[in-house]
Parts: sequence; structure tokens; C-alpha cells
Amino acid sequence: MAYKDEQLIEEKVFKDPVHRYIHVRDRVIWDLIATPEFQRLRRVKQLGTTNLTFHGAEHSRFNHSLGVYEIVRRITNNFADRERWDREQRLLCLCAALLHDLGHGPFSHSFEKVFKLDHEQFTQQIILENTKVNEILKKVSADFPEKVADVIAKTYSDKLVVSLISSQIDADRMDYLQRDAYFTGVSYGHFDMERILRVMRPMDDQVVIKSTGMHAVEDYIMSRYQMYWQVYFHPVTRSAEVILSKIFQRAKILYEDDTYQFQLEPTHFISFFEEKVKLSDYLKLDDMIVYYYFQQWQEEKDEILADLSYRFINRHLFKYVEYNPDPQINAGMELYQLFKKAGINPDYYLVVDSSSDLPYDFYRPGEEEERLPIHLLMPDGGLKELSRHSDIVEAISGKKRTDHKLYFPKDRIQQIEDTDLKKRILDILYGKE
Amino acid sequence: MAYKDEQLIEEKVFKDPVHRYIHVRDRVIWDLIATPEFQRLRRVKQLGTTNLTFHGAEHSRFNHSLGVYEIVRRITNNFADRERWDREQRLLCLCAALLHDLGHGPFSHSFEKVFKLDHEQFTQQIILENTKVNEILKKVSADFPEKVADVIAKTYSDKLVVSLISSQIDADRMDYLQRDAYFTGVSYGHFDMERILRVMRPMDDQVVIKSTGMHAVEDYIMSRYQMYWQVYFHPVTRSAEVILSKIFQRAKILYEDDTYQFQLEPTHFISFFEEKVKLSDYLKLDDMIVYYYFQQWQEEKDEILADLSYRFINRHLFKYVEYNPDPQINAGMELYQLFKKAGINPDYYLVVDSSSDLPYDFYRPGEEEERLPIHLLMPDGGLKELSRHSDIVEAISGKKRTDHKLYFPKDRIQQIEDTDLKKRILDILYGKE
Amino acid sequence: MAYKDEQLIEEKVFKDPVHRYIHVRDRVIWDLIATPEFQRLRRVKQLGTTNLTFHGAEHSRFNHSLGVYEIVRRITNNFADRERWDREQRLLCLCAALLHDLGHGPFSHSFEKVFKLDHEQFTQQIILENTKVNEILKKVSADFPEKVADVIAKTYSDKLVVSLISSQIDADRMDYLQRDAYFTGVSYGHFDMERILRVMRPMDDQVVIKSTGMHAVEDYIMSRYQMYWQVYFHPVTRSAEVILSKIFQRAKILYEDDTYQFQLEPTHFISFFEEKVKLSDYLKLDDMIVYYYFQQWQEEKDEILADLSYRFINRHLFKYVEYNPDPQINAGMELYQLFKKAGINPDYYLVVDSSSDLPYDFYRPGEEEERLPIHLLMPDGGLKELSRHSDIVEAISGKKRTDHKLYFPKDRIQQIEDTDLKKRILDILYGKE
Amino acid sequence: MAYKDEQLIEEKVFKDPVHRYIHVRDRVIWDLIATPEFQRLRRVKQLGTTNLTFHGAEHSRFNHSLGVYEIVRRITNNFADRERWDREQRLLCLCAALLHDLGHGPFSHSFEKVFKLDHEQFTQQIILENTKVNEILKKVSADFPEKVADVIAKTYSDKLVVSLISSQIDADRMDYLQRDAYFTGVSYGHFDMERILRVMRPMDDQVVIKSTGMHAVEDYIMSRYQMYWQVYFHPVTRSAEVILSKIFQRAKILYEDDTYQFQLEPTHFISFFEEKVKLSDYLKLDDMIVYYYFQQWQEEKDEILADLSYRFINRHLFKYVEYNPDPQINAGMELYQLFKKAGINPDYYLVVDSSSDLPYDFYRPGEEEERLPIHLLMPDGGLKELSRHSDIVEAISGKKRTDHKLYFPKDRIQQIEDTDLKKRILDILYGKE
Repeated sequence: MAYKDEQLIEEKVFKDPVHRYIHVRDRVIWDLIATPEFQRLRRVKQLGTTNLTFHGAEHSRFNHSLGVYEIVRRITNNFADRERWDREQRLLCLCAALLHDLGHGPFSHSFEKVFKLDHEQFTQQIILENTKVNEILKKVSADFPEKVADVIAKTYSDKLVVSLISSQIDADRMDYLQRDAYFTGVSYGHFDMERILRVMRPMDDQVVIKSTGMHAVEDYIMSRYQMYWQVYFHPVTRSAEVILSKIFQRAKILYEDDTYQFQLEPTHFISFFEEKVKLSDYLKLDDMIVYYYFQQWQEEKDEILADLSYRFINRHLFKYVEYNPDPQINAGMELYQLFKKAGINPDYYLVVDSSSDLPYDFYRPGEEEERLPIHLLMPDGGLKELSRHSDIVEAISGKKRTDHKLYFPKDRIQQIEDTDLKKRILDILYGKE
Repeated sequence: MAYKDEQLIEEKVFKDPVHRYIHVRDRVIWDLIATPEFQRLRRVKQLGTTNLTFHGAEHSRFNHSLGVYEIVRRITNNFADRERWDREQRLLCLCAALLHDLGHGPFSHSFEKVFKLDHEQFTQQIILENTKVNEILKKVSADFPEKVADVIAKTYSDKLVVSLISSQIDADRMDYLQRDAYFTGVSYGHFDMERILRVMRPMDDQVVIKSTGMHAVEDYIMSRYQMYWQVYFHPVTRSAEVILSKIFQRAKILYEDDTYQFQLEPTHFISFFEEKVKLSDYLKLDDMIVYYYFQQWQEEKDEILADLSYRFINRHLFKYVEYNPDPQINAGMELYQLFKKAGINPDYYLVVDSSSDLPYDFYRPGEEEERLPIHLLMPDGGLKELSRHSDIVEAISGKKRTDHKLYFPKDRIQQIEDTDLKKRILDILYGKE
Repeated sequence: MAYKDEQLIEEKVFKDPVHRYIHVRDRVIWDLIATPEFQRLRRVKQLGTTNLTFHGAEHSRFNHSLGVYEIVRRITNNFADRERWDREQRLLCLCAALLHDLGHGPFSHSFEKVFKLDHEQFTQQIILENTKVNEILKKVSADFPEKVADVIAKTYSDKLVVSLISSQIDADRMDYLQRDAYFTGVSYGHFDMERILRVMRPMDDQVVIKSTGMHAVEDYIMSRYQMYWQVYFHPVTRSAEVILSKIFQRAKILYEDDTYQFQLEPTHFISFFEEKVKLSDYLKLDDMIVYYYFQQWQEEKDEILADLSYRFINRHLFKYVEYNPDPQINAGMELYQLFKKAGINPDYYLVVDSSSDLPYDFYRPGEEEERLPIHLLMPDGGLKELSRHSDIVEAISGKKRTDHKLYFPKDRIQQIEDTDLKKRILDILYGKE
Repeated sequence: MAYKDEQLIEEKVFKDPVHRYIHVRDRVIWDLIATPEFQRLRRVKQLGTTNLTFHGAEHSRFNHSLGVYEIVRRITNNFADRERWDREQRLLCLCAALLHDLGHGPFSHSFEKVFKLDHEQFTQQIILENTKVNEILKKVSADFPEKVADVIAKTYSDKLVVSLISSQIDADRMDYLQRDAYFTGVSYGHFDMERILRVMRPMDDQVVIKSTGMHAVEDYIMSRYQMYWQVYFHPVTRSAEVILSKIFQRAKILYEDDTYQFQLEPTHFISFFEEKVKLSDYLKLDDMIVYYYFQQWQEEKDEILADLSYRFINRHLFKYVEYNPDPQINAGMELYQLFKKAGINPDYYLVVDSSSDLPYDFYRPGEEEERLPIHLLMPDGGLKELSRHSDIVEAISGKKRTDHKLYFPKDRIQQIEDTDLKKRILDILYGKE
């Protein structure tokens, strides 16, 4: 039997808190899960620093990747029930779903920003270069790794397959919203996925939604909105991210400073500092490694590196206030000078962080980030863009919301001995300006 | 106001998936949570290697410790509703609940066995010696750290206080059963805790249960039974533990071997190898550190250390068969010899692991580990030991169950070139004996 | 001890699927629950004909009334925790919550429309006239029944008390959204009530919401929106209501027709037909009585009454199409004539039903139905109307949505022998117009 | 296309709180659901008088019947996935599952005892005689009604089919345990049905369970045990049943008493009193009819009938004490005399009710009620009776538990004017004997 058609003698199941069970029958999938590259995802938390805000959010990307696979498995089963759905196309969908986050490193969000990396590029490399994952995919067919990589990169010719993994209502989002809600324990993030899966229909180059399921989709979009503002952009989580970024920034500068002698050399990060990252370096990284360095760096001689590491490890985070860069630019500039005067290096201790989200949008020609709209399949067989049929979605469609916060170590400010200086800083921050 | 009476201006809440919200009003509790010693528990998984079997089980001991605190908070609130319950006694209960697991290290079960340590002793030290936790407890009163330590050690004079934290139906167990069920996603582990809390009554030196709540208690005992055999003693989890123990064992031997030169010196473990552990060494350990070493050790020259580390990191675990040491001793001895002959060091690659559990027991005079029975408060005001009133509990009471398994690397056996030797080994293992 | 202060020796609890437990300590509450007037609510379904669409929706108004009581109990406990809250005021809130729906009859929505009644007026009567409920309330104090009635009628002087029971975010709505979601099994209707209760603050004449809880309130408003369109206005439910109304209408006409002799005289309904309803007549009505008549009336000689009764009892409902009375008035008039021609009495068999909902609104001066807005309590102590702070709520605020449907017995149309007539009717209905 | 093969163009779904969705594709099933005989089950509560104890338990037998159908649908789908499973055999299973409770009347338990009826016999009649249900089943094939009836009567030749509906782990029990737990809100009754369905295997004349699923089955058996004692045999529910039985008993005696003139003639019950029940009489009965009579009978001249009816309608139930007929026979006889003396008719007001349950049993030859054991399918392909493999099940296997209670109207006793007599009665009842 061809490798791609091999079935496990006994179906394997993973107990999953979100989808109850994750089912694996294809040997290809089973073998992919066993690779070191996929197992590495067990050591990368799905939500980075969010566990410092919601203590339940310790779940890994391994977890989520299996979940996305399971959702796509159910969708393709539903489709196959209805019409012929090619076996290899199905396997392609499953593999792309399973592997779509393979290139995520530890704390991707901050890490990528500091080192100007892109996890999607690493996902491509892991699939296409010399890895166990690539070895298995090649056994399906010579061009299979390429196809999987294309689906994940959204460049694959069959846009229907792409849309299962990446669209405004894809398996990726459906899994993470529910999973992150489950592990954080928040009451948002629930929607009737079973219903959505049942009203999905493959149509040409996209998945459309039978209009009878519109309300379940509305609910999903509202869940998404709430999760962004309640969980993903939580200001405490962002405080930890700010510190994390500043640790990497500081370590890089110290590395470049020939006069500085690390107690623990940043071996794992050197190729990142030098911007010559090899795949093998990247694959060695995970949350554990980062935590190891941070823990050791608490004892570095450099006070900034030691202090920031201590803050991260022991959750002594920065406080924050609302801050809008545009109108408040002068206040910001004054603060910068005052921090300097107080001996608190503002390059590390006075940080603006901005988050913004667009809950749903339809296609607006010419915009930089074009989004594929969600289409409803009407009883008469026609298609209708979601926001034209749903009042709720229409109301929020295209409404981008942005939030800026200014982070700083309040404890340090309170220790400033010059009472006038201290008062001035606090006045600006807490609005007696 | 005395420190012990200080209340937070605004009650703080933690979102918790199991108890919905964890409420903190006492400044003492808030300050304890912020200590580095308590924050360390974020980096120690509650269930050690269980996440290799149930991928959701990534939750930390920080998580669980807050949960036990919350349950005790609710119990003491209920008690206070009914009768006068001394404020300081209440604070003592809350602190003991919060801190009862403070001394847990990474993968305690295996770690303690290999290094002959006891996490309870470290809990005592952290509370009584020179730590941030001790500093805060002393601010309550000079003898408060001692009292908290005594409650956790079960030596405190007021046995009622002790029983909230350690008995056959205590806050510790009620939290972990529910929490571990939640994060693994298994359907066992649910019982009506709200009802149990409502029927608990303080009486002399113990907490008794109003007999109208008996069925909720039965359900709790059954949950406990199922969790032990379905989750805690899961053979795959134990396979990972076996490997973990063998890694430490091997590292110690290599450390003692002057001819061996580590590529990554086991700095963090030296005091453990030399059995001169200082508290500060111990507090530096967490899951992250262990994972860091294991990842690095995959590249050690020593083949056993490298192989076992690779297995742990990449989840290439040992397989297992049922094995009862008593009748099967000869088979075991033969296997030992055959492994040697095949070049597979049986000291690391042929391991018996035994688990046993006693689901519930009443007091049996003279037994080594005396257990305090659960008492029901009957309508007539008398007490009755649970198993005398509950048919179900009576049926399982005192029935210890033990399970032995033999672990080995099946992949290695299958690579043996001497086909007779291979066949003989497989025959013994898989029962064509 | 004064009756109003009497506590039950042992707190009573009701097991409730939505709030887990409902707790009763006050003797007044316990005695009210035991009255025949309150027990009657067991025989009145909360959602009328909805169980014909969602088979789980069999729950009674008894159920819901206990739930509203429990929520108010929790709110007032939270308030009392914070500041002094007068005992009698608390009891007033609890009684009003428990009794607010006391005057509901069977299938209130349809019943009241046909007979031009108002259940709120009956609630007043039951509380104020010669009933067991009144007897108990009077034992609290002579003017207590009046006060309870005033709170329910929203005329009570202390608007804070009123707002707990009737406002845009009151205990009534919070209970029914969750309860109706639970029993129908839909996935909408969930929101974090525990959080909302914790951020509610009494302030002058209203309950305000701490702004940190805004997202929970947004979630509640979205739940409300979804429940209205997914459950309460479900077209199949409305089909059953249409038939129900027509049965009563027909029975009244037959009663007024001296030539018609009922096989089962409509004894229970005569005072309604004659518009001289006494409280004692009203209290005899419940779902069971209505069903009894409908079942018997299946065998009446009058074909319309018999047919409609058969349809209701055996769920042979009318079908429906979208219908907008304004532009479609001519089509409607033609249909009316065609039905007549086909021998299908359009007065009973061609019915327009309209539903409309306003998801949230703030105060708009001069509008007929003024709604009290939800106010957020900002960190600076000021108040802000919800839609000024929440993008989502702002987006849907004041957007009334109306839905019109035309109901008819498709089976009857399909039996029309004149094929042209039949075709013309179906063409108009199904849009080949 | 043959009627039996007809599929609905669009699959129909029912929203179900327990199984989320109930799916119907076969036209036969859809048509059966629409029959008056099946719709009647909407008007028969699943748990009779239990709603007087657990106010959520208002759910109907319609509800449960759909649930059993859905479980069998999933089981047969799983089977079909694995091996060929004959289409007609599958339809037979589905129909038998859907219709298995069709003959249930209102409050079956009490009703059948008083009138010596058996709902199973009515189920047979509805399926086999002149009904809409029979009409539809005959369209499948001439002998199909007979087959369906045989499956339900357990006399069908293929015992595998029978065992899906009636065995110690059948679809019927799996549905009602979960459903009754859901609607009452108790925390018992949960088990991992999804897992059980996945480990069920058809084997010769029974369904066996793969041994890896043993713990899920243990959990199911424990749930069953708890539901029996916590819900089904709840003493308050039984109090209402006792009263209900006595109402019917009294009405029959009054009917037989020519001197008594009913205000509301018991028309619907006459054929039951005269033991000449026709199917058409039986089908007219439902909970609504019974409630109608009871409500009217509150105003009968006969004091016993009026009082008992009032008690039932307004939930003024009897109180109870433990009572064991064997040792306490003398006390019982004395009470009987004392009640008479006090003018409280002991034939209606002093009632012993006994409940007993056997949680699990294996086959014991020669016993009256032989139970088919649950068999585990071991890894070696052999079968093993459950209690031989499960310690927990072994412990409770065959342990019948019986509970006797004595019911009486405590309010009446407290009104006895002869204080010695009253004291003597209370002493016997409350144990100062």
C-alpha cells in the first residue's frame, strides 16, 4: 500500500479538553506527530506571557496544533460525506493544519519583533529543508512538502484548501479561541463550532456558510472580539512582553559591547544577535531555554539585564497608564528627560506598547492587508457577504480599534529621592498634568 | 492596623478555570503570592510527566496552590457564618493552604526518589529559614512561621486546622482532583464540591460531614479512585518518569567518574549528587532548568545519557508489559542477562515500576500509615465512620490495589541482530513463555 | 421574634441546574413558595410554545421565579458585604423578585393579546387581594404587600430597589437568558454573571457597573440579542402561537353564537370571553387546563376549532414566508381573496405575525417607552452611559429590528383541486410573483 | 426508491441539550416523529412526580425517546464504519430505539400499579394495531411492525439488535442517566459516553466493550447507582407518588359506589376502573388530563379525594420516616389503629413505600430476573465478565439495596385534639418507642 494510504491498525486518540478526542488514523499524521520538530511545540507556550495574567494559560502550541488538525479532519469528513473529496487533497489539508505553526519559537511575538524574524518563514524551512518532518512528507510524494508549504503560505493554487487554514473563519482561529478560553477560564470564546462545521460548504475557491448558520458565525465573531480585548491584549500580559523584549535588546547590546563579559554567555542567541540564524539554531530554542537564561541572568553584573530578568522571572512587572502618542507626545518627551534625570534609563524603562484589532472586514479594494470576506450561501443559491446580512457584524465591520499604553516601573519611581522630580513624574503619569 | 488585619482596598481576583474566581482580600496572602519562592511554583508542573500522556496537563503548582487556598477560604467562610472562628486561626489556615506545596521541586516524584529528598522538608525550610516568605509570615507574629510549618507538617496542636489541609477529604485533594481532571480533559474527577463544602462541620479535632451529604462524598471517593488509575498511574506517564530517573542516576555516576568530562557540567545538580543540598540550590531548580540540561545532554558523549535525554525530550518512551516481580522473578533475571548479552545495559533499560493505591480506609490500629477516617454527622448528632454507612465505600474500603509494569526500549530490542536472542527476549516479554 | 426576622433552623436548598443551588433562610420566602398561587407557576411553562421548536424548553415559571430570587439574594448579599443595607429593604427585594411573575397565565403572550389582559395587573391583584400570598406578606407588616406590588409595578419610591428587578440589566433578564439557554440547549445565552454581580454597585437610585466589568456586560447584551432572534422569535414557535390565538378567537366566536352547541363547554374561559374575569377564575388557569380543552376540542363539530386544536396538539403547524405588510399589501389582499375562493377561511388560516426587538438603548427624551440606560462607574468616580464607552454596544444601540412573517397551512393549499388557483397561491407565497 | 431507503433532501436536526444535536436523515424516522402517538410523548413527563423535588425535571418522554434514537444512530454508524451492517437492520434498530417508550402513560409507575397495567403491552399495541405509527412502519415492509415490536419486547431473534435497546448498558439507560442528570441539575449522572460508544463492538448476539474502555463503564455504573438513590428513589418524589396512587384508588372506589355523585365525572378513567381499556382510551391520556382532573377534584364533596387532590396540586405532601415492615410490623399495626381512632383513614394516609435497586449483576442461573452481564473484550480476543475485571464493580455486584419508608400527613397528626393519642402516634413515628 502506498505510504499516503496507510492506516493505523487501531485508530489512535488523544484526550483533548476542547474537542474531547482527537482522532488519528493516517500513518502520515501519526509519524509527523512523533518528529522532534513537532514535539518541540510541547515546549512552546501557545500564549507566551499570558500565563502571568491568567494562570491557567500554560497550554502549548503542540496542543493547539492537534486541535487545528482535528477541526480540519471533521470539516473534510463532512465534505466527503456530501461529495467526492480527493484522498490526497484531504491529506494535504490535514498535514497543513497540523504543521501550520511549526515555525513558532518561544514568545514569538516579542522575539520576532526584536530580531526581525518571521515564524512563517521558519515553518517553510522546517517543511522544506533537511528535517524529520520533510523526510516523512517526501514519502507521500516528492512534491508533497512543497504543497504543504504552499498551503500554509497561502500561495497554493486551490484556494479552497488554503481557506480551511487561513481565512476570517478558519480552523486555526476556531481552535485557538476555544482553547485559549478553556485554559484561561474566561467565559468568552464559546460559540457553537459544531453548528458552524455543519453549515460549511465547499464552493469553488472558498468555504461558504449556509445562511441558516449565520447566528453561530456572529457569535464566533463576537467571541473573537472579546478574546482579543480581554485576553490577547491584556495590559498585564503586554507588560511582561515589554520586559521580555527589553531583555533581548539589552543582551544584544551587551553582546556587541566588547568590554562586557557575560557570566552566562548567550550561546543560544548569538546567531540571532548576528542575524545569521540557521534552522538548527532556531530548532534548539524553546521556552525552557529562554527561561534558563533569564534565571541565570538575574545574577549578571549588568544592572539592567539583571533587573529586567528578575522582573520577568518573579513577575515584578511594569505598571501602565493610557497613553496616546499623538496628542501626548510632549508629555512623553518630558517623561523621557525626567527618567534620565532620575537615573532610570528610559530606553528600557519607559515603553509605549500599542495593540490594535479589526474584528471583521470585507474586501476593500486597494487596502494593504486584503481580507477575504465570509460569504453566506442564501436559500436561493446565491452568495451574500456576511456584513450585508448581519446587523451585528455590519455594525462592527471595518472598525479598527487601537489601544496605546505606557509602561514603566512604578516601584523605581517611588524610590526617587528628589521629591519634586518624583512628584512631577507621577503627575504626568497619573494625570494631574 | 496590625499587618495581619490589613485588607486590600480593592479585593483582588484571579480568574481560575476550576473555581471561576480566586478571591484575595488579606494583604498577607497577596504579599505571599508575590514572593519569588511562591512565583517559582509557576515553573513547576503540577503533574510532572503527565503532559506526555495528556497534552492538556501543563498546569503548574502555582495554579493548584491558589486553588487549595480558595477552597480553604470558602470552608472557613462557611464556618465563620455559623460560629465564631478566630481571625488569626483563619489566617493560619489560609497561609498553610497556600504554602503547603512550596517545597515541591521539578518532577518531585522521580527527583526525590533518586536523590533521597523529601519536598515536605523543603517546604518547612522555606517557611522557617531566611526567605521572603518567612519575612512576611514573621510580620504577622514572631511564632507565625512556626505555626504555619506545623500545620503543614501535621504536628500543629489544633487537629481541626490540620485536617482542612491533610485528611482523606481535604482541600488539597479536592482541588487537585478537579484541576487535574479539567486540564487533562478526562471525564472523571468531577464531584459536587459545593455540596461537600456546605455539609462540612467543624467538630472538636476534625471536620465531619453531615450525613445528608454522604452521596457527594461517595462520588468524591470514586473520582479519586478513577483519577489514580486513569491519570496518575497511567503507564505512559510512568514510562517518562522511569527515563527521567535513569537520566539523573546516570548523570550522578558520570559525575562521580573522574575520567568523564561533561560537555555541559551539571552545575545545578552537584549539591544533589554530593548530598549536601542547600536551600538556595534547591530554590534555583525548576522544570525549565531540568529541560535545559536534558536538551543539552542529548549531545553528551556518554551514549546512555545522550540516548535517555533524547528519549525524554522527543518523547521516544519505553514500552511496557505487565510484570509481577514475585512469580516472574526468574523471567526477570533471565531478561537481565539477555539484555546484557544484547548490549543493552539493563540497569538503565530494563526497569520495574510499581504503583499502588488504597482508595479509602478507616483507622486500623497498629498499621504503619494510619489514616484518619471520614466521619458522618448523623441526624441524631452522633458520628458514624463513612464505610459503615455507605455500601459503595464499604465495598472498596481497605482494598489496596497494586500494579507492576516492566519498562524497556522496544525499538532497541527490534534492532538486535542475533535473531535467536531477539526472539527469546520478545517471547519472554510478550508472553509466549 | 418578628415574623420578618424569622430564620429557618436549617437553611433550605433547591437544586437548580442554572445557579447550582438556590438558598432559602427567611421563613417569609419559604412560606411564599408553599402558597397555592406560587405553586401554580409549576404548571405554566416559561416559554409557552417554544418547546415545540426546542424540545428541552419544558421548564416552568416556578423555576425562573426561584432563579430571579436567587440572583437578587446574591446581589443584596454582595451589597450588604460592603455597606449597611437595611434588612427590611432586603426582604422587599427578595419578595418582589420571587413574586414578579406571579400573574402569568398559560401562554401569556397569545392569551393576553386575544383577551386584552395584562399579567402584570394580575400580579398586583394576587399580591394585594385575598390570597395566601397576601396573607403572608401582611404578616411582615400591614403595608408590605403594597410595597412589594409597587416594586413590581416600578412605582416604588426607591428606584434602586426597582432597578434590581426591572432595568436593562436586571435579575429577571439575567436569569431567563441563562435558564432559557440551558433548557433549550442553545449555545448562546452564556455570559459571566458572577463577574457582573461582583461589579454591580448601588448608587443613588440605580445600580451601576464598575467599568472594569464592561466586557461582561457587552457579552450579556450580545447574549440577549442572540436569544431574541434565535429562540424567542423563532418562526416555528410563532407558528404555534398563531394557531393558539386563533383557537381562542374561534372559541369565543362560537361561544357568542347561540346556535353553536359545544361538546365540551368552555367553562374555564367564559369569564374571559365575557370580559368579566375574576381573580379566582384566573388562578384556576394553567397550561394543563388549556391543553385539556384543546385535546377535547379536536372532536368538536366546528371544523375550524377542531382542525386548529388538532394542529396544536399534534404539532401540525402552519408554514411561513417572509412578508412585509407595507410593500406587499396588494399581494396580501389577493391572497386573502384566493384563500376564500379555495374555501380556506383566511381569518384563521392566513396570519401575519410581527416580532421586533431593540437590543439596547439609552434614554432618548420624548420616546414612548423610555428605557433607563446602563451606567458604568469609571475609575475617577464618574458615570458614563454604556454605549459611549463600548464600541460594540454603540454599534447596535437603538437599532430596532423587526421581522414579519406570513403563516398559512401549506398542507391545505396543496390539497386545493383547482390547479390554477393552487398555482397562483403558491406563486404569490413562494415568490414567482 | 423504496420508502425505507428514502432520505430527506436536507438532514433535519433537533437541538438537544444532552447530545447537542439529534440528526434525522431517514424519511421513516421523520414521519414517525410526526405521528400523534409519538407527539403525545411531549405531554408525558419523563420523571413523573420528580419535578416536585427537583424543579428542573420537567422534561418529557418525547425528549428522551429522541435521545435514545440518537445514541443508537451513533452506535450503528460506528459499527457501519467498521463492517457491513445491513441497512434494514439499522433502520430496525433506529425505529425500536425511537419507539421503545411509546406506550408510557402519565405517571406510569403509580398508574400501572393501581390499574394493573403494563406500558410495554401498550407499546406493542401502538406499534401493531391501527395507528399512524403502524401505518408508517408497514410502508417499510409488511412484517416490519412485528419486528420492531419484537425488538422492544426482547423476543427478536437477533439478540445483538435487542441488546442495543435493552441490556445493562444500553442506549436507553445511557440517555436517561445523562438527561435526568442534566434536567435535575445534579452532579451525578455524568460519564464519558463518547468513549463507551467508541469501545462498543458487535459480537455474535451481544455488544461487548473493549477492555480499554472499562473505566468509562465503571463510571457509568456508579452514575447509575447514584442516580437511583439520589434522584429516582428520592423520598419526596415517592411521597407525591403515594398520594397520586391513593387519588386513583379513591376515585375508583367512589366510582364503584353508586351513592356517590362526582362533580366532575372521571370520564377518561372509566375504562381503567372497569379494567376494559381500549387503545384509543389509553392514547387520550397524558399528564395534562390527569392534572385537569386533580385540579377539579379539589372541589369534590368526598373529603379524601378533595384533600389528596389538593395535596398533589399544591405540593402539600406527606412526611416520612424510615420503616422496616418486618421488625416493625407491630408498630405498624398499632399506628393503623391509632390513625383510625384519630379519624385519619389509614388506608389513604398511612402508606409504606419500598424501593430497591441492584446496581449491576452478572448472570446467576435460576434467578427470576436474569440479567445479561456486560462483557469486556480482552486484548487477546477473549471475553471476560465485567465484575471479574473491575474491582469496583466486583465490590458492588449483586448487592441489592432496599429502602422502606412510611408516609403520613404530619399536619393532620398535629391537629389531633386528644393530646395523649397525638403523643403516642408521634412517639411511634419519631422513635421514642
